[in-house]
Amino acid sequence: MANVAKKVSWSGRDPRDDEDERAGETTPLLNGTGPGSAGGARQFTPSSFLRPGQLSNVDLNEDIRELETELPRPYPNEIPHNEKLLSLKYESLDYDNSENQLFLEEERRINHAAFRTVEIKRWVICAMIGILTGLVACFIDIVVENLAGLKYRVVKDNIDKFTEKGGLSFSLLLWATLNASVVMVGSVIVAFIEPVAAGSGIPQIKCYLNGVKIPHVVRLKTLVIKVCGVILSVVGGLAVGKEGPMIHSGAVIAAGISQGRSTSLKRDFKIFEYFRRDTEKRDFVSAGAAAGVSAAFGAPVGGVLFSLEEGASFWNQFLTWRIFFASMISTFTLNSVLSVYHGNAWDLSSPGLINFGRFDSEKMGYTIQEIPIFIFMGVVGGILGALFNALNYWLTMFRIRYIHRPCLQVIEAMLVAAVTAAVGFVMIYCSRDCQPIQGSSVAYPLQLFCADGEYNSMATAFFNTPEKSVVNLFHDPPGSYNPMTLGMFTLMYFFLACWTYGLTVSAGVFIPSLLIGAAWGRLFGISLSYLSKGSIWADPGKYALMGAAAQLGGIVRMTLSLTVIMMEATGNVTYGFPIMLVLMTAKIVGDYFVEGLYDMHIQLQSVPFLHWEAPVTSHSLTAREVMSTPVTCLRRIERVGTVVDILSDTSSNHNGFPVVESNPNTTQVAGLRGLILRSQLIVLLKHKVFVERANLNLVQRRLKLKDFRDAYPRFPPIQSIHVSQDERECMIDLSEFMNPSPYTVPREASLPRVFKLFRALGLRHLVVVNNHNEVVGMVTRKDLARYRLGKEGLEELSLAQT
Amino acid sequence: MANVAKKVSWSGRDPRDDEDERAGETTPLLNGTGPGSAGGARQFTPSSFLRPGQLSNVDLNEDIRELETELPRPYPNEIPHNEKLLSLKYESLDYDNSENQLFLEEERRINHAAFRTVEIKRWVICAMIGILTGLVACFIDIVVENLAGLKYRVVKDNIDKFTEKGGLSFSLLLWATLNASVVMVGSVIVAFIEPVAAGSGIPQIKCYLNGVKIPHVVRLKTLVIKVCGVILSVVGGLAVGKEGPMIHSGAVIAAGISQGRSTSLKRDFKIFEYFRRDTEKRDFVSAGAAAGVSAAFGAPVGGVLFSLEEGASFWNQFLTWRIFFASMISTFTLNSVLSVYHGNAWDLSSPGLINFGRFDSEKMGYTIQEIPIFIFMGVVGGILGALFNALNYWLTMFRIRYIHRPCLQVIEAMLVAAVTAAVGFVMIYCSRDCQPIQGSSVAYPLQLFCADGEYNSMATAFFNTPEKSVVNLFHDPPGSYNPMTLGMFTLMYFFLACWTYGLTVSAGVFIPSLLIGAAWGRLFGISLSYLSKGSIWADPGKYALMGAAAQLGGIVRMTLSLTVIMMEATGNVTYGFPIMLVLMTAKIVGDYFVEGLYDMHIQLQSVPFLHWEAPVTSHSLTAREVMSTPVTCLRRIERVGTVVDILSDTSSNHNGFPVVESNPNTTQVAGLRGLILRSQLIVLLKHKVFVERANLNLVQRRLKLKDFRDAYPRFPPIQSIHVSQDERECMIDLSEFMNPSPYTVPREASLPRVFKLFRALGLRHLVVVNNHNEVVGMVTRKDLARYRLGKEGLEELSLAQT
Repeated sequence: MANVAKKVSWSGRDPRDDEDERAGETTPLLNGTGPGSAGGARQFTPSSFLRPGQLSNVDLNEDIRELETELPRPYPNEIPHNEKLLSLKYESLDYDNSENQLFLEEERRINHAAFRTVEIKRWVICAMIGILTGLVACFIDIVVENLAGLKYRVVKDNIDKFTEKGGLSFSLLLWATLNASVVMVGSVIVAFIEPVAAGSGIPQIKCYLNGVKIPHVVRLKTLVIKVCGVILSVVGGLAVGKEGPMIHSGAVIAAGISQGRSTSLKRDFKIFEYFRRDTEKRDFVSAGAAAGVSAAFGAPVGGVLFSLEEGASFWNQFLTWRIFFASMISTFTLNSVLSVYHGNAWDLSSPGLINFGRFDSEKMGYTIQEIPIFIFMGVVGGILGALFNALNYWLTMFRIRYIHRPCLQVIEAMLVAAVTAAVGFVMIYCSRDCQPIQGSSVAYPLQLFCADGEYNSMATAFFNTPEKSVVNLFHDPPGSYNPMTLGMFTLMYFFLACWTYGLTVSAGVFIPSLLIGAAWGRLFGISLSYLSKGSIWADPGKYALMGAAAQLGGIVRMTLSLTVIMMEATGNVTYGFPIMLVLMTAKIVGDYFVEGLYDMHIQLQSVPFLHWEAPVTSHSLTAREVMSTPVTCLRRIERVGTVVDILSDTSSNHNGFPVVESNPNTTQVAGLRGLILRSQLIVLLKHKVFVERANLNLVQRRLKLKDFRDAYPRFPPIQSIHVSQDERECMIDLSEFMNPSPYTVPREASLPRVFKLFRALGLRHLVVVNNHNEVVGMVTRKDLARYRLGKEGLEELSLAQT
Repeated sequence: MANVAKKVSWSGRDPRDDEDERAGETTPLLNGTGPGSAGGARQFTPSSFLRPGQLSNVDLNEDIRELETELPRPYPNEIPHNEKLLSLKYESLDYDNSENQLFLEEERRINHAAFRTVEIKRWVICAMIGILTGLVACFIDIVVENLAGLKYRVVKDNIDKFTEKGGLSFSLLLWATLNASVVMVGSVIVAFIEPVAAGSGIPQIKCYLNGVKIPHVVRLKTLVIKVCGVILSVVGGLAVGKEGPMIHSGAVIAAGISQGRSTSLKRDFKIFEYFRRDTEKRDFVSAGAAAGVSAAFGAPVGGVLFSLEEGASFWNQFLTWRIFFASMISTFTLNSVLSVYHGNAWDLSSPGLINFGRFDSEKMGYTIQEIPIFIFMGVVGGILGALFNALNYWLTMFRIRYIHRPCLQVIEAMLVAAVTAAVGFVMIYCSRDCQPIQGSSVAYPLQLFCADGEYNSMATAFFNTPEKSVVNLFHDPPGSYNPMTLGMFTLMYFFLACWTYGLTVSAGVFIPSLLIGAAWGRLFGISLSYLSKGSIWADPGKYALMGAAAQLGGIVRMTLSLTVIMMEATGNVTYGFPIMLVLMTAKIVGDYFVEGLYDMHIQLQSVPFLHWEAPVTSHSLTAREVMSTPVTCLRRIERVGTVVDILSDTSSNHNGFPVVESNPNTTQVAGLRGLILRSQLIVLLKHKVFVERANLNLVQRRLKLKDFRDAYPRFPPIQSIHVSQDERECMIDLSEFMNPSPYTVPREASLPRVFKLFRALGLRHLVVVNNHNEVVGMVTRKDLARYRLGKEGLEELSLAQT
């Protein structure tokens, strides 16, 4: 009877579906089979599957063997990468508490006062997250400023020396080498030590908050590499920003602090043990991400909204309030430290890494007639953003196919750095746009071929950190820029930024996008001024702002949070309305062509990401079609050997197992009794929580919740647990450890209904039952993420082990 | 077999619980029985209850009768009102779509393009909500301004005439009479025409968004009365604001527009029919409330957060984005119209009804040393807020007990108006605080006993609309106010505002709270200035701002949304951090003493309001204890007579009925098959959707979803539907209309788990099943709202029909 627990993968699918698939890819609904799964297995009727007394196990196993030999594997092991694929390698986070007896006993022991202590701890953790995130932002800012200043001085001295001698090619060489070597270091640490630290980290954090476990994403090592990497990228003169990585940094800090220990450093501070589970950790990671946004843009409300937009499945007032607290503390810390560092203590005027400066409503107010113009800019931003994303898509596909070895990645990064320097140099050389030094707030004036008392404005644009360039574009008085310079700069920077995003360096895309947008926006403003003979549209600064919003919106497609971030960064509520319109237009136009950059990268990674709602046209699907079947079930009192075998089955690698009634003497229907997780089973096996079959009446060893928490989050693999042959014959009683009330849906529930339940509660496993409460299937994240709204209606992604 | 559907109320409870209750109120868990319910009924075991073949109905009915005669009714029919009570008179909204066959068929017919049309309609509705809400706000603002100006001129002329003659008592009489009569009109329309328009409407909207149907709350009549009422209250010189009612107005506008018809006006525009259900309507009402906040305070982001904080159970990105859109449109409309009205078109400088004016960070910046002072102000605000709420609590209890007749209510409102005028007059008379007219921005300078070229500042404080007084307190230069005047004013206004809130007039508490806080805050700032000999703390304006935040936070206890509203109203992000600290402190301190004002009023109305989370110590309860039992079930093919009887049973008045397997020939267990709502049954009966018992094979009449939508939201009562004796013997097939996949929980699920499912999905009925999927109980809003965290741990409220 031990074989009631079937070793059939529930990611294996109905063979009829496989036939559909072979019949051609033109059918709108494709059911894919993972190449690593046990092949398709015939769908068993629920009753034959779950009535132990009537079940012929021999038939069953033969069935499977037959299918395994018969069916050709529908896909080769290595699948050419495409976006119509869902990877099975990502595990899900479990935001649903396993309310087993142990948990309930603990919760019942805790009285009201103790709960208050827990609550206070939560606030303390949030304050710490805010402070540390703010400090990390300060650190990045100060180090970048100093290193960039150093680099500028070296290059400037060199250029000054060689300008007269005509040996400018040597200056170029020095500049390019300097940049390339700095970027090389930044790229090497990312490529060889922690590849997950590449990029802005926003897609990864989106996935984490969505419930997908991206390996290593919230580890201390990642934080260190990320911080060093971003400093080196920015100093290396790449077209990148340091804001995106702050969000990732904040998330890592939050994950670390909230657990009260560092697994990497092997230090356990024995604090905050209550928070060692996915539910709590996710809440803190939300706070960390918000604190990161807040530190990056001085936008605490925007940070909260970012976290909510990306992560929250269930809005909770207290949680949001704590997230806001962390955000506020973070921007306040950054503000205080930077104000002290800059010598004017208590000034509190730099709330974020980037500050758009003050937009005075009197000087730069807009009128209602300008709104159509802003909307037109939104359209332009949407188109340019879509172009950016499309180019980046092809580039990323190319990278995935050909540049997957770390050393190649480093070489590409160095190449980009050198090219960036070269392009900059050539453009500086070609453009003779000289501006008077007086009255301008340029940090690094480069005279080059200009007259004394003047500086080369193109050189400024390339030498400044991108943040400063953005602010200059917003606030420099009319006439500061030559339209030709601006145009060339926009064009070059557009392609450079596009090439840069996706390199194996830590870097964000926010600032480059803003810079591109600000540049063409200002250009647009100048043209308008020309056209209207400089009437009311005198100040091109506000067009630079709208252009920046349009371009950023067109690339990342964020909505509410981005509006609020822009509003907070400009410190002006009046601009809210046009910014919203611009972002909305850019999103609508951009979405018409191609997805947002982050979503695109998430999809290129084949992450099973769940959007807010099920595809609108998916009402025709029900849980019956969506669910994976058959399901590996365990009995309430199960043989240890069976458990070990199931857990060791690499072809299935399930993480949750429904527990069914185990009395073998009854002919009654065996209904669902609970759900147990792989991690729980592993802890049970590790602690030898089982009794001999003969002594079933003996009480098995008691475990505490602490044993589970200590093992969290890196549960050992089953292979590391030795179970002797004698022990295999023991019995394990799961009643105490299983979740006795897993969420279930009937087979008739429509996909949107299943989706809503799954998403709203942050589930990992959803058991599908028939009318008699017997398990007939299981819905997991992959089953839901497979369905997507394509150009021609609902489409289904294939599953792959890659 | 027709009696399988039991007519026993499931709000009747286990008699053992009643015994517990009689044993004394010292047990922490009291199980209450509603006086109107059918008395306690013995808890039937699930098997005896749901196995039709084995069930002895005679026993059952006798059991009940016996209990009814034996048991004394534990409560009298009229219960002295107290806050430990939950009213049964409120129905719930149903945010869970009934995914029956009709619905699924419709959804399946709709293709992708049609869904896009629906989506566009949603945006159009949101734009209309924003525009109309903005226009209503403009209307209120303009009318109030004109009427207040008129009143001021009349009174001023009179005072000027009588000041020299010494006949000031006549002026007082005129003033008091004028105010009292205006308020009388405002009170009469509220008390006699639409009592739900009383107050600020925020508690009502909170309840609606929470899922409680407050009768008449989103009707057109309510809107008209509300708008007229608030104008009259403000003009009548009461200590009230016009901001709170804007939120209610926005919500009504949203509910009206989104349905494309007005039931009151009997006009159906045949548009937006798709949105005629609770789920969609609620989403729009959220947008309307946000638009209201946005128009009131010029705070679009604050509006969104308000809606989310109060209403959202499930955050949805698109929804939030639409809400934001409505908010933005609303503030933009208000801004445009008012700017045109004030003559400086396209200035866009009045985004809300109240605008705190510009807080220049340079002039009014704060330093880090001031933060402890701000926190101290938060403590003061918390204490004063708690005092306000406690006083208002006693007042409200008094009103509920003694002032429940409309004419008494009108008289009280007139009394308050007269007293407000008298107090103002006496204070103006007593205080001789004269200020020079030049350089001050006073709209209504009253010379009174002051020298020429001067005005009486106390008179200004009482004559200005409260909004203007608040702004003056924030921005008047140091030295504008005599501390004595401020102190007296604070004291008087505090008691007047407290007395005013809860009167039968439409009026908000936001502005009075801000005014009280600004007054004592400024006083505090002046004192600090004296103490520190006027060093850095020269400007008392920022203390006025912090005081206003502290007082408002202490009274209403809103958190994130209030912070953002204050930030947006000041137009200054830098103040965010101290405002957050102040609000947080005020909330913590205030919560120590007494609840927030809105929550208090919700509780005094005995509304079954669900908070964000189950009480922290409720893990010891499971669905078994929480659920109501036994449940009235229907069979899938049910006798019409049985249905009519069940629906007519006034003692139970259920709204949802589980549908169970109906085959009477089987001895097998009858599992849950679906859930059907009272409203659906009523539509079925109305359209005579049934067949004769002999012709069961005939197809019964088909209904369309439209039939249900046309009846929404005012379904006729069962009494209005005539069913003949012959028809009673017909059979009705519910399969097509029931929701075949209702959410269920097992009996073992803990209360927090049940609560989370219920709250996250916005459910109205949650079926509790046993291991065989048989219905054993039902959890509704009342069952969950009963449990509350009191001072001594978990407590249970009693249920009452009041």
